[in-house]
Amino acid sequence: MAMNKKPTTGMRDILPEEMRIRQYVMQVIRETYAGFGFTQIETPCVESIGNLTSKQGGDNEKLIFKILKRGEKLNVKDAETEEEVTDGGLRYDLTVPLVRYYSNNSASLPSPFKALQMGNVWRADRPQKGRYRQFMQCDIDIFGEPSNLAEIELILATTTTLGKLGFKGFEIRINERRILKAMAAYSGFPEDSYDSVFITMDKMDKIGAEGVRAELLENGFAAEAADRYLNLFAQMEQAEDKLGFLAGELGDFLDPEVHTNLREIIDSVEATKSAQFDMVFDATLVRGMGYYTGTIFEIAIPEFGGSCGGGGRYDKMVGKFTGADVPACGFSIGFERIILLLTESGFQVPGASEKIAFLIEKGIGGERLCGIIAEAQKLRSEGKQVLMTRMMKNRKFQKEQLQKEGYEDIRDCFLEALK
Amino acid sequence: MAMNKKPTTGMRDILPEEMRIRQYVMQVIRETYAGFGFTQIETPCVESIGNLTSKQGGDNEKLIFKILKRGEKLNVKDAETEEEVTDGGLRYDLTVPLVRYYSNNSASLPSPFKALQMGNVWRADRPQKGRYRQFMQCDIDIFGEPSNLAEIELILATTTTLGKLGFKGFEIRINERRILKAMAAYSGFPEDSYDSVFITMDKMDKIGAEGVRAELLENGFAAEAADRYLNLFAQMEQAEDKLGFLAGELGDFLDPEVHTNLREIIDSVEATKSAQFDMVFDATLVRGMGYYTGTIFEIAIPEFGGSCGGGGRYDKMVGKFTGADVPACGFSIGFERIILLLTESGFQVPGASEKIAFLIEKGIGGERLCGIIAEAQKLRSEGKQVLMTRMMKNRKFQKEQLQKEGYEDIRDCFLEALK
Repeated sequence: MAMNKKPTTGMRDILPEEMRIRQYVMQVIRETYAGFGFTQIETPCVESIGNLTSKQGGDNEKLIFKILKRGEKLNVKDAETEEEVTDGGLRYDLTVPLVRYYSNNSASLPSPFKALQMGNVWRADRPQKGRYRQFMQCDIDIFGEPSNLAEIELILATTTTLGKLGFKGFEIRINERRILKAMAAYSGFPEDSYDSVFITMDKMDKIGAEGVRAELLENGFAAEAADRYLNLFAQMEQAEDKLGFLAGELGDFLDPEVHTNLREIIDSVEATKSAQFDMVFDATLVRGMGYYTGTIFEIAIPEFGGSCGGGGRYDKMVGKFTGADVPACGFSIGFERIILLLTESGFQVPGASEKIAFLIEKGIGGERLCGIIAEAQKLRSEGKQVLMTRMMKNRKFQKEQLQKEGYEDIRDCFLEALK
Repeated sequence: MAMNKKPTTGMRDILPEEMRIRQYVMQVIRETYAGFGFTQIETPCVESIGNLTSKQGGDNEKLIFKILKRGEKLNVKDAETEEEVTDGGLRYDLTVPLVRYYSNNSASLPSPFKALQMGNVWRADRPQKGRYRQFMQCDIDIFGEPSNLAEIELILATTTTLGKLGFKGFEIRINERRILKAMAAYSGFPEDSYDSVFITMDKMDKIGAEGVRAELLENGFAAEAADRYLNLFAQMEQAEDKLGFLAGELGDFLDPEVHTNLREIIDSVEATKSAQFDMVFDATLVRGMGYYTGTIFEIAIPEFGGSCGGGGRYDKMVGKFTGADVPACGFSIGFERIILLLTESGFQVPGASEKIAFLIEKGIGGERLCGIIAEAQKLRSEGKQVLMTRMMKNRKFQKEQLQKEGYEDIRDCFLEALK
């Protein structure tokens, strides 16, 4: 039977050249985050279907690759629904599995627990250019730190990493779910439709104030509320200190602690950052996931249109597993987008080791061969990369190919010493 | 709805301590194999169900985690069989996906192509102690090298890695499928039942000569054939040069090239090895997978009962994808078993960096906080690992916990400078 050479639909093979960049970026991430006290952990790629469909994952729950039951538990013939034939699924993000992990293992984990995860996730999205159904996510999360030290550490760690990878002139946009809520309350939107209002607000930079107004009215909200919101927004835009203006204007709608807390994050990061970027308060930033409870933030890299990672505080998710809430805050760096940006900009991995190739003529054996191998082993022990390969008939072509792969030192090993 | 804290049945969470060992071992593997010219690649974890059930995977094909079709393609209600509702599965090894990868991308790959893969595989085995349904495999493979340079490089690379990880006194057992066949032919077993004969031969070290004889007879083979085989085996065991004896005795049943080829591998590796181990010719070594066509080999570590990795030559598998055979040879190092051995022996990752913790009293903000963070950032840029965390009420307990995690330098940051 002929086999299928292609990767399964929407997934891809990673070639050596890209893999070298990925490995390098992973190494930089691992080392930098380790400096901040994050320890790497791993959860299984498969999670129970109940955890994956618990409404924590938003729209991603529609995109789950589900896994068929096995053995006696599976009865396809009599089954009427998907639920009857499936018991697990591939994770669609690293957050839900991490919270399960923390809930399961917290007795063995330090407090605060600072976790680094790098792993694949799967989403059965419609395949499109640059988006694949298997992709890598890279998250850092802190459990058990209620203060804004968590946000400061997450933002410093992530931006230090971006800086080491050569990114500069980017922005970290930051907002607070409670500011979004206060703005909605101040404007007079009904509390049970805040989420819908936020989705529209989030489009400000794409569709402008007029577009936002139209969409709010279209969604059935009162013109008074829409205008009050847009008026507040327009005044804020004029203000030099946007956050300060908002805090003053929102008055009793906003806990003053939210204002000082957010300002402290922005000021501390600005004062101690080790990469070239700006902290920007962005009152329209929403972040899709419903589980966020406080600060939310996002990386905006000018070379790249959309967001290149983001995160926020989610203090209520551990409670869903254990019944007792634990403060939690996380930041996901857009691994695949970073790789794409580096690849497209012709990024070269620094510090590649010297590459030497031995071309060995057919027939060489015995002591002669042992001598050549011993030489190769010696060079390897000195940190050099050594390829031993048969000499081809078309030696010129073979050498050209090896040169393309970076082998500059190519040594002929002939059967007879002089030829 | 309450969520399930436990990992899905048969899979497990990896805690920070084990993860540090895993990362270290992966780093040693990556660096050592890179020295031999292996480049890391990656294939998707999901493969099309056709490739996974093509009889290349032996018994592993019974253990596939299958993935449900999605959207309109799925009709559970009318389906009668598993095949109708599934279109993919999680890979059960790295070899089938690698051969697909090579077949799909060979135009962009060097020749010979030396690949390193480290990735998870999944098998729905009955859960048991120390065996999990998701586990890491670590394979090196060489495509396009017909000579025994491939075997020599694979064995040297793998044993150098084991040596760097502190293993010594182990064995690499080696055999050749063609020797197994020649022994079976010489003994007079019918050609169509060689595979069954090999399975029994493989048990020699467990059930002994009498056991092997009984099983062969039980399986319906002639006593003459069994006795001829056991007689040959007994004589070989007495011989000082087992391989030489066999080659002489098998005569025309064995291509003399097999003998010289195998001897060259054994002698070259013995002469140039950089770890403390022995090459051992083992005429009973079979290796389960039917795809092997030539040499087969296995790591035997005395501290560990069974095999700790293995591999061999499989020159006919690329042809199943492309119609044209390409020489191929691979070696899989038993990653999970190595981790288990290291963990159980109390292995400590070398070269851990200095760990410093800042305990920050509640209420510290402004310039004071920025000063502390700046100091932490400075220490991090010097390669130190720095944790910033809130000071707890029970500071003594907090310090004890941090000391357990390896923080020796713990610095109090009080709200008031003197306290």
